[in-house]
Amino acid sequence: MIYTNPDTTAAWARLLSLAPAGTSFDFIRRLDAERVKTCSVPMAAGLSYNWAAKAADEPVLGALQALADEQNLIPKYRLLVEGEVMNTGEGRMVLHHLLRSPGGMSATGKPVLYRGKDLGAFYRNERDRFSAFAESVRKGEITGSTGKPFKNAVQIGIGGSDLGPRALALALDNWASARGLKKLTPWFISNVDPDDASSAAASLSLEETLFILVSKSGVTQETLANELLIKDKLQRAGLDPSRHMAAVTSETSPLAHNPAYLDSFYIDDFIGGRYSSCSAVGGVILSLAFGPGVFGEFLGGAHGADKLALEGDIRSNAALLDALLGVWERNFLGYPATAVLPYSQALARFPAHLQQLDMESNGKRVNRAGEDISYATGPLIFGEPGTNGQHSFYQFLHQGTDIVPLQFAGFAESQRNDDVEVEGSSSQTKLKANLAAQITAFAKGKEDGDRNKLFPGGRPSSLIHGTCLTPAALGSLLAHFENKVLFQGLVWNINSFDQEGVQLGKLLTKKVLAGGGSGDSALDAYGALLGV
Amino acid sequence: MIYTNPDTTAAWARLLSLAPAGTSFDFIRRLDAERVKTCSVPMAAGLSYNWAAKAADEPVLGALQALADEQNLIPKYRLLVEGEVMNTGEGRMVLHHLLRSPGGMSATGKPVLYRGKDLGAFYRNERDRFSAFAESVRKGEITGSTGKPFKNAVQIGIGGSDLGPRALALALDNWASARGLKKLTPWFISNVDPDDASSAAASLSLEETLFILVSKSGVTQETLANELLIKDKLQRAGLDPSRHMAAVTSETSPLAHNPAYLDSFYIDDFIGGRYSSCSAVGGVILSLAFGPGVFGEFLGGAHGADKLALEGDIRSNAALLDALLGVWERNFLGYPATAVLPYSQALARFPAHLQQLDMESNGKRVNRAGEDISYATGPLIFGEPGTNGQHSFYQFLHQGTDIVPLQFAGFAESQRNDDVEVEGSSSQTKLKANLAAQITAFAKGKEDGDRNKLFPGGRPSSLIHGTCLTPAALGSLLAHFENKVLFQGLVWNINSFDQEGVQLGKLLTKKVLAGGGSGDSALDAYGALLGV
Repeated sequence: MIYTNPDTTAAWARLLSLAPAGTSFDFIRRLDAERVKTCSVPMAAGLSYNWAAKAADEPVLGALQALADEQNLIPKYRLLVEGEVMNTGEGRMVLHHLLRSPGGMSATGKPVLYRGKDLGAFYRNERDRFSAFAESVRKGEITGSTGKPFKNAVQIGIGGSDLGPRALALALDNWASARGLKKLTPWFISNVDPDDASSAAASLSLEETLFILVSKSGVTQETLANELLIKDKLQRAGLDPSRHMAAVTSETSPLAHNPAYLDSFYIDDFIGGRYSSCSAVGGVILSLAFGPGVFGEFLGGAHGADKLALEGDIRSNAALLDALLGVWERNFLGYPATAVLPYSQALARFPAHLQQLDMESNGKRVNRAGEDISYATGPLIFGEPGTNGQHSFYQFLHQGTDIVPLQFAGFAESQRNDDVEVEGSSSQTKLKANLAAQITAFAKGKEDGDRNKLFPGGRPSSLIHGTCLTPAALGSLLAHFENKVLFQGLVWNINSFDQEGVQLGKLLTKKVLAGGGSGDSALDAYGALLGV
Repeated sequence: MIYTNPDTTAAWARLLSLAPAGTSFDFIRRLDAERVKTCSVPMAAGLSYNWAAKAADEPVLGALQALADEQNLIPKYRLLVEGEVMNTGEGRMVLHHLLRSPGGMSATGKPVLYRGKDLGAFYRNERDRFSAFAESVRKGEITGSTGKPFKNAVQIGIGGSDLGPRALALALDNWASARGLKKLTPWFISNVDPDDASSAAASLSLEETLFILVSKSGVTQETLANELLIKDKLQRAGLDPSRHMAAVTSETSPLAHNPAYLDSFYIDDFIGGRYSSCSAVGGVILSLAFGPGVFGEFLGGAHGADKLALEGDIRSNAALLDALLGVWERNFLGYPATAVLPYSQALARFPAHLQQLDMESNGKRVNRAGEDISYATGPLIFGEPGTNGQHSFYQFLHQGTDIVPLQFAGFAESQRNDDVEVEGSSSQTKLKANLAAQITAFAKGKEDGDRNKLFPGGRPSSLIHGTCLTPAALGSLLAHFENKVLFQGLVWNINSFDQEGVQLGKLLTKKVLAGGGSGDSALDAYGALLGV
C-alpha cells in the first residue's frame, strides 16, 4: 500500500480551486427542506448523519470522493482492522475494532493472529471474565472485606483510562437507572492533585466501594499515586485493600497476576488508551454499573458502525463523509476548530472524550514517514451540551470574527421519559426545537438594519440524530467518531495512534522531581515559584 | 471620553511592525531564571501573574502600554466602576464591581446612584438578607415542609446563573469541607433536557432539599420548565413547593415578591448574567453551602483585584497586562484560541465559566457604535484541569500544526492537605512539577533527530500562582479574568456587556414551538427529523 501526502493528489488541487465557492456557500438559497431530506447517511443503531448544513455541493463531494479514493482510505481501513501494523512509530497493530467484533473476527470477518495467538479470542475471553466478575459483584457474591455488597465502583485512571469510560458512564446512567439496571454507582479519580482522590474517599462508604485501577503500562504516575492514597484510606478504615481493588492492565505490567487485587483483566499494546473504551478499560466499570448486557448492546452498536465504515461511497459511509467534510473545512475553508454540541445532558462529557480522541490522534506535525508536512492536521475540538452552551459561548459562534464548524447531535426522546409540559410543549420538545433553530440560525443568519443584531450566517454544521440515546446508539456514536478520526489521519498521512507529544513533559517532570537542578534555570525557577 | 477602533492608533501600527519578532521569539535563549523572577506582577489575595513565557520583550511591552494609554483603558475602567452607561446597546450601567466593594462605594470610593437610589446600598442590603437567610437554613431554623433541616441546595439556572456559581461551588467544596464549613451540598440543574432535572430529583431526598430558582428576567425558558418539573416532583412527594424554593431575580420579574417562594433575593439590569457570580446569583448557594463568611472572603479577594486594576502601568496591573498580551497574541501573532489550564482539580469547571465570560463578552463583530470591524476580537476559550489535560489534548498543543497560547494556574498547597508520598514526592509536588515542566516544554521544545519526537516549542504561556486556592484567592482569580475581558473589550472598542448573538436562536425556537410552519422549509424539515 502506498502512503502519500494528500497535497500531492489531483483531488487536493481540485479542492483548492473549489474553496472560494465553499467560503461563500449560499445557505439561504440552497438550504431547504429538500436538501435536509436528501443529505442524510444512515449510521448504525438507527442513527443518521445529516450534512445538509455543510458548505458542500456536488463538485465538492466529487472531489472529496476522489481524495478518499486517491488516498486509498477504505483499503487502508481494511488493512487496519485486519491487523496491519498501522501504528508505525511504535510498530504496533491497531485493534480496537476487534474488541467489539462478534466471534472474535475482524470487521471484515477474518481472524487476527499475533505470534500464533488469536487476539479476537483473547479479547473475548477477557470480556467473558470481566462480565462474570461484574455479575458476581452485582449479585453480592463478591463483596468487600466486611462482607457488605459493593455499591460504588470507582475507576482510578487518567487520559484514555478516564475520559472515555467517564463520558460513557454518564451517557448511560439515566438510561440504565430508569430501567432498573443500575446496580453500582460509577465514580472516577484521575488527577494527581491529591484533592481528587482524597475528596472521593471522604464522600464514599469505603467498605461498600470497589476500586478499579486502570493503567496499561502499570506505571502511570498519577494512577499509582492515587492507588496508594486510596490504599492508605482503606487500611485506615480497617479494610483489606486487596478485597476492594481490581486492575485493568497489560499482562506484562506490575499490576498483572498480582494478589494485591481481587482480579485483573487484560488488554495489550494494540489497544491505544484513547481507543480503549470498548476493552476492559471501559468494560469493567460499565458492566459493574449497568450490567454486562448493557455493555454488550453498546459494543453491538459500535461494531455496526465499523461495518458501515467499510463502504467506499462517501455518500453511504457517514464516518468517511464526516471525515472528508472535516478536511474540507480544515484545509480548504481554513477553519481551525470544531465545536461538538450534543443536545443531550447525558452527553455532557462526550465532547471532552472526543477532544482527547481527536486532538491526541491527529494533533501531529510530521507524516507517517517522520517528515515535516505543510498542511494543517487535526483541529481544536471543544464543546458543551446544548442548550447550556447557547447561554454561554454561542454568542462567539454566531457573531464572533471567526467561523467554527459545528457538530450537533440530538434525539427524539429523553432517556428517562420523565417530562413536563410548559406553555404547550414538553422540555424534550423545547430541547429539539432549540437544536433545529440553531442549525438554521447558524447557516442562514439574519439581516438587520442594526448591525449589532445582524447574524452573518455561513456557519456550517452537521447533525447526528436518532430516536433515543440507547447503549447501542452510544456505541454507534463512539465508533463513528473513532472511525472519522482514523479516516482523517489517513487522509493527512499521519500516524493517528502514537502520542510522542506527551513525552517531553514527562521527562522534564522527572528531572524536577529528581531534585538537585534540572539543568534548565527557567525550569528550576518555575519549580521554586510553585514551591516544588 | 473618545472611543476609537484600535487599528487607528499609532501603537497598533507599531505592534504590527513588531509582530515578526514575536512569532520567532527565542525562548531557549531568553527564558531563564532571571526572566522568570522578574516577569511577575502581584495580584490580589497573594496571587501572582507571571508572564516570563510570553513572546514579548521591552519594545512589545512599550507598544502595549502605548495601546492601553491611547485607548484610555484605565480612565474608561474608572468610568465603568463609577456608573457610566458602558453597556451602550442596552443603555445600562455595568456594576458587578460594586457587588464586592465594601461600604457600597465604587472601587474608586464613590457612591453609585440611579434615579436617586444608592445601588451599592441596595446590593449590600440584598447580601445581608441572603446571608441571614443562609444562616437560618444552615442552623436548621428554616426547614422544609416536613420540618427536616435542608441538606442539599440545588440551583436551577442556566448560563450566567449556572456556570459561574457551579465553577465556584466546586472550587470551594474541598476547601470548606476540610475546614468543617460545608453544611449543604450544592447541586445544579441547567439544561432544558428533562433528564437533567429528573435525575437530580431522583437522586436527592426532596424533603431535605432547597431549590434556588435563578433567572433575572423570570422568563428564561429552561429555568421555568425545570421549575415546573421540580414542583411536580415536590408535590408528588407530598411536600409544599413554596417551603422548598427560593428565588433570585430582578424586582420587576414574575418571580419577585411571590408567595410561591420562601424568599426572593434581588439583582438588577446592571448585573450581567456572566458577571453575576458575586451577586445573589452566586451568593445564595455559596452562602448556603459554605457560609456567608466564606462568601465574604471570596468577595474580598475580588475587590482587591478590582482596586489593583486601577493601576495604569501594565507592569503593575496583572489584569491589564494579561489583556494586552492576549491582544498581542490574537491580533498580531494571529493565534485564534487560548487554553485555560488550572493545575487544580477544584478548578475543573473554571475554564467552562471563563469560556462563557470571555466568548459571550468579546465574541463580537461590530464596535460600540454598531460598525463592522476588520480586526479579530475575543478568542476561542477552552480548557481542562492539569494533569488530566496532559493525557488528552496536550499532544495537539505540543506538536499540532497550530499554536495555542496557554493560561496556567497552580498552587503550592492542596485544599484538603491530605496527601501521600510515592517515590520520594507527594502528589501535590508531582502536580507542581508537572506544571513547571509543561511551561518549559511548551516554550523551549526539544530538538530530536527523529522529527516525530521533536518539539518545536514557541508555545507561549502565562502562570497565575499562589499558596492555596482559598476563597479570597478564588475571588482574586475570578475578578482578574472579569477585568481582563473588560480591558480587552475596551481595546477592541466593542460592547462586552450585551449578547445579541443569542437572540436569533430564541426567535426561531419560538417559531418552531408555535407550530404550523416557521416560514423556513429547512427549519421545519430539521424539526421533523428530530420529531419536534
